[in-house]
Amino acid sequence: MDDARFMALALSLGRRGQGNVWPNPAVGCVITQGTRIVGRGWTQPGGRPHAEPQALAQAGAAAKGATVYVTLEPCSHHGKTPPCAQALIDAGVARVVIATQDDDARVNGRGIAMLQAAGIDVAVGVCEAKARADHAGFFCRTDLGRPMLTLKLATSFDGRIATGTGESQWITDAPARRLTHAMRSRHDAVMVGAGTARKDDPSLTVRGLGVAHQPARVVVSRRLDLPLMGQLARTASDIPLILCHGSDADPSLVRTWSDLGATLLPCAARGAQLDPVDVLRQLAAHGLTRIFCEGGSALAASLIEADLVDRLVGFTAGLVIGAEGLPGIGALGLSRLAEAPRFALQSSQRIGPDLLHVWRRNADL
Amino acid sequence: MDDARFMALALSLGRRGQGNVWPNPAVGCVITQGTRIVGRGWTQPGGRPHAEPQALAQAGAAAKGATVYVTLEPCSHHGKTPPCAQALIDAGVARVVIATQDDDARVNGRGIAMLQAAGIDVAVGVCEAKARADHAGFFCRTDLGRPMLTLKLATSFDGRIATGTGESQWITDAPARRLTHAMRSRHDAVMVGAGTARKDDPSLTVRGLGVAHQPARVVVSRRLDLPLMGQLARTASDIPLILCHGSDADPSLVRTWSDLGATLLPCAARGAQLDPVDVLRQLAAHGLTRIFCEGGSALAASLIEADLVDRLVGFTAGLVIGAEGLPGIGALGLSRLAEAPRFALQSSQRIGPDLLHVWRRNADL
Repeated sequence: MDDARFMALALSLGRRGQGNVWPNPAVGCVITQGTRIVGRGWTQPGGRPHAEPQALAQAGAAAKGATVYVTLEPCSHHGKTPPCAQALIDAGVARVVIATQDDDARVNGRGIAMLQAAGIDVAVGVCEAKARADHAGFFCRTDLGRPMLTLKLATSFDGRIATGTGESQWITDAPARRLTHAMRSRHDAVMVGAGTARKDDPSLTVRGLGVAHQPARVVVSRRLDLPLMGQLARTASDIPLILCHGSDADPSLVRTWSDLGATLLPCAARGAQLDPVDVLRQLAAHGLTRIFCEGGSALAASLIEADLVDRLVGFTAGLVIGAEGLPGIGALGLSRLAEAPRFALQSSQRIGPDLLHVWRRNADL
Repeated sequence: MDDARFMALALSLGRRGQGNVWPNPAVGCVITQGTRIVGRGWTQPGGRPHAEPQALAQAGAAAKGATVYVTLEPCSHHGKTPPCAQALIDAGVARVVIATQDDDARVNGRGIAMLQAAGIDVAVGVCEAKARADHAGFFCRTDLGRPMLTLKLATSFDGRIATGTGESQWITDAPARRLTHAMRSRHDAVMVGAGTARKDDPSLTVRGLGVAHQPARVVVSRRLDLPLMGQLARTASDIPLILCHGSDADPSLVRTWSDLGATLLPCAARGAQLDPVDVLRQLAAHGLTRIFCEGGSALAASLIEADLVDRLVGFTAGLVIGAEGLPGIGALGLSRLAEAPRFALQSSQRIGPDLLHVWRRNADL
């Protein structure tokens, strides 16, 4: 049972890197001698150093003969760092416990094989479900070529995100908004559609949590007709701003936004809108693994329609706005109830006066 | 602490009558000698006998010198039964513990005074908040002249009760539907608007629970243009059917429905619709204390707009229907978010694959 306990600690260390290590996975590592912890490490901001060398450095000579808990198979390839599997071998550890294998084609069992070839005792699959959930964004990018996508909606009891006149501040209360900022900080990027960027002039930053790291901001805007005097333009040189636009966007706007410091990602169109599949493909190619989408209703609908939403996060407030209010999710074009995409309830809890409910598209995300 | 324990038992006995004793309150009574229970009673179907004589009959001679726990002040007036306060005095009980005073003008402290005048030790206020909640419908009718109203909505994650083509069976799963039937059975009446009655042809009965008692059915229909060959017409002579209609409804329809066995309640109009305030006033005058409204969206909106909804019961399913879907609550005519009526979260829990969340307009309902 100590294996599960030390792995749970390694998982919690690994989660410290979530949102801050892309395109790398947020890995945690614990090194023990018997019941004593001699080293702890996690993937550092930007994705390097990896968790294992951090923990090995802390353990020093105590790594010899030690047991190592790591939330993902150690890497076996020379990338920007030497392979972690080799570092563990060189340190003379006796046993390596791995939560789950790395699906990345460059690893995919080779890390395990290297360790075993060196005579190290290897166990795989401790706390595997939790590790797969923690690394879901990394695996999603590796396996599906797109980031994991969480869609968040803060609505009234009757599913409205604003009144008919567009008033939306504030439907949910301060605790829900604070938790939203914490959720943003654990994602690589916060994403909104062009309509929301124009209407709300959001900064999409993490505020009020004492967090130094800011996730990237993604705006999906086919024509790049975004306010040049707004919050996003003003902060584009300080905090990463990624603009997904159509190849038919005005070249002078492309240049202007590029000069402001934004990253421009041309994406394929599908009808009048950008193709959400290609938008996520481009974002994955850029390195993003975990995206937190906060609307608006048209972008939300296009992502749902293309079956690209992995998790739904609902904050429901106890007020009623009525049918003139703005719906959180736009038109889907469903004719039969059987066609409606279904999500499984993962958890629900009271957050201040509001209700948080989280749903998953697939059981393992 | 025994007082609270016995009162909790009395409250649970009292709840057995909910939905089945209107216009009377659903009272529970426990009689003890020391720690031994010698009598238990609750208001019987139709509202008589009251809880106290039931418990006294069970206790027999053991009532002498006993302690009586009763969830509402014993009545002091000769109605269709002799006053319960007198029955307790006649039985020679030593002490009466009362959860809460009866606001009814015919009682209102007189029952307590009778007991005290007879030298009985009286304590008031044990488990009072729970008792006020259990008797909320009775107090609502007594104090406000209208029944307590619960509005239930079963919606998709995005607040839709049907697809754009009207398909609504089934959004929530079997456990939520079963719980809905249990909720119906604890209310005096199930209420829907005319549109729902026409579209869904519901029977509005309690099914699948082995419950003999059926709540009344209420349909709000200004013009009485309801299907004469439908479920409601077919069952009107067996299970109470109450039709709230306008004074301008076709007299031949009034006669037809009356002949079918329905109770006809003429209500005042307000614009093109029936005035929801008068609808509830007429239902209270008819004796109803607890109403469970299941839509549709127009009736729900008119009740919310008139601030007549005491509890919101939401069942949320993990599917997304999109903006063409039918909203659960119709137009409210709000222009400012500050005007939106607010409800306080009372509880939430998973019901099968769905999420149940209950909200209260006022803390004591």
